[in-house]
Amino acid sequence: MSKIVRVNMTAKTVIEESVADTYAALGGRGLTSQIILDEVEPTSLPLGSGNKLVFAPGLLSGTGAPSSGRLSVGGKSPLTGTIKEANAGGITSQKLANLGVKAIVLEGKPQEKSWYLLKLTPDGAELLPAGDLAGKGTYEVTALLRRRYGEKVGVITIGPAGEMMLLNAGVATNDGEGNSSRYAGRGGLGAVMGSKGIKAIVIDSPTTFDVPVKSPERFKEAARKFTKILLDHPVTGQGLPAFGTNVLMNIINEAGALPTRNFASGRFDQACEISGEKLAEIAVARGGKATHACHPGCVMRCSNVYPLPDGKVCAPIEYESAWALGAHCEIGDLDTVARLNYICNDVGLDTIEAGGALGVLMEAGIITFGDGQAAINALEEVGTGGSLGRIIGNGAEFVAKAFGVTRVGTVKGQHLPAYDPRGAKGIGVTYATSTMGADHTAGYSITANILKVGGVVDPLQNEGQVELSRNLQIATAALDCTGLCLFVAFAILDNPDGLPTIVEMLNAQYGLNLTTEDVFSLGKQVLKMEREFNTRAGFNHVHDRLPEFFVKEPLEPHNKTFDITGDELDQFYNF
Amino acid sequence: MSKIVRVNMTAKTVIEESVADTYAALGGRGLTSQIILDEVEPTSLPLGSGNKLVFAPGLLSGTGAPSSGRLSVGGKSPLTGTIKEANAGGITSQKLANLGVKAIVLEGKPQEKSWYLLKLTPDGAELLPAGDLAGKGTYEVTALLRRRYGEKVGVITIGPAGEMMLLNAGVATNDGEGNSSRYAGRGGLGAVMGSKGIKAIVIDSPTTFDVPVKSPERFKEAARKFTKILLDHPVTGQGLPAFGTNVLMNIINEAGALPTRNFASGRFDQACEISGEKLAEIAVARGGKATHACHPGCVMRCSNVYPLPDGKVCAPIEYESAWALGAHCEIGDLDTVARLNYICNDVGLDTIEAGGALGVLMEAGIITFGDGQAAINALEEVGTGGSLGRIIGNGAEFVAKAFGVTRVGTVKGQHLPAYDPRGAKGIGVTYATSTMGADHTAGYSITANILKVGGVVDPLQNEGQVELSRNLQIATAALDCTGLCLFVAFAILDNPDGLPTIVEMLNAQYGLNLTTEDVFSLGKQVLKMEREFNTRAGFNHVHDRLPEFFVKEPLEPHNKTFDITGDELDQFYNF
Repeated sequence: MSKIVRVNMTAKTVIEESVADTYAALGGRGLTSQIILDEVEPTSLPLGSGNKLVFAPGLLSGTGAPSSGRLSVGGKSPLTGTIKEANAGGITSQKLANLGVKAIVLEGKPQEKSWYLLKLTPDGAELLPAGDLAGKGTYEVTALLRRRYGEKVGVITIGPAGEMMLLNAGVATNDGEGNSSRYAGRGGLGAVMGSKGIKAIVIDSPTTFDVPVKSPERFKEAARKFTKILLDHPVTGQGLPAFGTNVLMNIINEAGALPTRNFASGRFDQACEISGEKLAEIAVARGGKATHACHPGCVMRCSNVYPLPDGKVCAPIEYESAWALGAHCEIGDLDTVARLNYICNDVGLDTIEAGGALGVLMEAGIITFGDGQAAINALEEVGTGGSLGRIIGNGAEFVAKAFGVTRVGTVKGQHLPAYDPRGAKGIGVTYATSTMGADHTAGYSITANILKVGGVVDPLQNEGQVELSRNLQIATAALDCTGLCLFVAFAILDNPDGLPTIVEMLNAQYGLNLTTEDVFSLGKQVLKMEREFNTRAGFNHVHDRLPEFFVKEPLEPHNKTFDITGDELDQFYNF
Repeated sequence: MSKIVRVNMTAKTVIEESVADTYAALGGRGLTSQIILDEVEPTSLPLGSGNKLVFAPGLLSGTGAPSSGRLSVGGKSPLTGTIKEANAGGITSQKLANLGVKAIVLEGKPQEKSWYLLKLTPDGAELLPAGDLAGKGTYEVTALLRRRYGEKVGVITIGPAGEMMLLNAGVATNDGEGNSSRYAGRGGLGAVMGSKGIKAIVIDSPTTFDVPVKSPERFKEAARKFTKILLDHPVTGQGLPAFGTNVLMNIINEAGALPTRNFASGRFDQACEISGEKLAEIAVARGGKATHACHPGCVMRCSNVYPLPDGKVCAPIEYESAWALGAHCEIGDLDTVARLNYICNDVGLDTIEAGGALGVLMEAGIITFGDGQAAINALEEVGTGGSLGRIIGNGAEFVAKAFGVTRVGTVKGQHLPAYDPRGAKGIGVTYATSTMGADHTAGYSITANILKVGGVVDPLQNEGQVELSRNLQIATAALDCTGLCLFVAFAILDNPDGLPTIVEMLNAQYGLNLTTEDVFSLGKQVLKMEREFNTRAGFNHVHDRLPEFFVKEPLEPHNKTFDITGDELDQFYNF
């Protein structure tokens, strides 16, 4: 990957730059965060001309490494005010890497309100007018662009939410079948894309796995070994390929950590109705798929294809989406969840934040907990651009402020995902301390807390949680540089050959001599650069805290509060 | 003033406490801020049970000291997240002091949604059900309570905005004629009152000027002298009594510092149409009053009574209101301004923030700059509780986020008042560094910058602005403890006998031996306690900055940006 494509939307210029030496060993999140730290003033307005939006494939993306198709999207978040990286599956990361693009940087801001399309082919990159795409949902945009430019193109796009610069707008990419449902969802980066006047990016690459590799045989051997490591682990080789991420619904419910009715309980009596097992049953019965790969070369295949009764297809319903749009809202019907998920995908919203917003709307009494049709009607408001829609589309904290609700589960303005920190305290440490606001993927302590992967740390005790989260956040920050799916972590946490094999792939690809220690150093470096950005943006330890109701209200069934102290949380960055 | 009335809205208890020795020498802002610092965890949710709302008359309130009727209202602000004190004129401060009440502290939060009235008489304080007042505007509530409890009672109330806990809800008190138009408006303290379930506070005191004074003759002599000092100064003795605060409209416009069309210009071509001179002309012609005292014993009488064509009366239209609802929105018609002001008073909104919100709505293109009827319609939405109304009622920054606008003039979430910091840089220092968010009253540098009061500091140069703002903020913090109206500052800045005479009144009232130096120490102490609260709430120097467009866009007619650097601003707290 040899070039950076820089698109200035003030001047409407597209230039290709060679990659600075200092960026050579960075990819994915490491590269997006470094560019943002280097080029964006931390106090910039997220939707102003000073912010930038960076797209970067991982270091291994576009090779034959299994499950290495993650695309990192980074910028200053309009939702949190922090630096933000959100990564997504789908086919665009591999295609970008195969075009030799190490990063796309969108910068500046158009003076006028107009929409553009950025098109990348082996011949280069160009900006094209895209007024005809304005106002369209992501499914239609993706279908239209695949018809126009060929079924094989990858499409990155925003929905109406991103055009309206709503704080919960995500960035969508598509899978191999053209479903615009792979989301760099969190933190409102779709609004940043909207602020730049870019409706879509089309990536047309004839190849998918042909990124240049220095030692092809050595690489192939390591990739084969890594594939076997993934297939041999019960989670990555059996659990995920059988039921996808939503296999977690019953597990987390059983553990008493499934946030239900806006964090009122840790158990949902209808959890099985929206579980992965139920999903597989319905999906298969309707001609869908219980599992499915979001990009070529994935061996975990944790996605799914869920046909709705009206003929539309929601692919996939992830666990966190089923939780946010289901249990969190006390909705126990998978068709309703799928419909809500589909609306999010089409309008261009992060499902976790959207479910959080609906839950607060229910807490406010504007709609009723469990009323699926009311939730659908409310969520459909977002696409209309009406006032209620703009409130909902701006996320849970915005809804709370609009309706005077104090019980809202956000950290740094971002809604908590599908694990109650009172039932799994390690994830609470991650929510509080992550550089990104509440984010389970930043350091997925559910592994040792509940899944007994990578050791065991009692989820209800305080001991070891900060250390667990720290180690996971460091490892994740490094992993997010590679383009590998986070889920490979299940295998590498339990298999001592896992990490060395990743290092071997990197060394074979780039002709390097990295050690596993270097990987941890990279993770620390990424967290530190992100922390530096946030500090310069005004954040400090006061913001590394959970909402007070988690500290005050015990959670059923374990009757525990989140009682890891501020002083303990502040030990997190001692590395 | 011998007692603190503590009202716990969780338990629905009212108790009277003796005043701690450490609070004896504090009043007004000093007391509200000290109680908030002592009793409220700075990270508390502003609308949660942990926040408190404190009402405190000033040290001189309820005596014969001229213009000493300010009531301080303090709490953690839901708009800014900082500590907040807003003070208002009207008759309640004097009455509270005459009941011997040094402070009312509202704390806790009702479990259920219900409304209460707090009634204070010489016999004590009690909570009464007030469900019948719910949903009513402040004018109706005040009229109803004056009918019920007597024409002489003072009423503190919130409108529907406060009941809905909107972030721009203010706290209203009434003048002697029962107009609920004296506002502790800024920072959303009306929402805090709403969160406590208190719709109104009735203060029934048979006396107004009879607070015990240790040395009555000495006090009377000092008060007489202070009255003369006020009457002898051209601003407090002539300008304000002739045209009220809105005498500033033409002056600030002439200076090129009148923010117009959401800060697009420093001059408004219709300024004279909404000026104090025009106001006096229309008001008098319609049987209103060009000037008027907001409480007994005020010699400056800067208020006014403006009859609207429909028979309603807006009393008063302050300069900052006329600016926010006029020039800021390019509305050059005083009847429209008065109508908007009346809606703010009745629904319970701060006029500055409301005008700011309307200006951003215009910047977004939702309504058109200069369209007065559209502005009236939009503002009337607030009282309906509809989604657009909730957006507008949550202030300018909320409107900006709802509609994707980046050009919004706020500091710490609070909208700038009626002086462009590019045309009067000293006030920009105050906006940036105040403990309260953008607030002209915190350190009114317009004195030396434009009015040539208390010296002269060129408004367009950087030299001396930080020092000017620092001195004024310290003096103001002290003055805000006394209950004296801020406008006495005009006189004391120019008359060396001014401050010693205030000190003499305090010494005579309390039997103290304060010096003028002690007054400055008190001011520093107040600023430091407020700063400490904010620091513990997560604020730091990064938040002491103006929005970036003031730094980037030059302002007509002087073509200046706000170029006092962050490093210079950070010198502010060196005292």
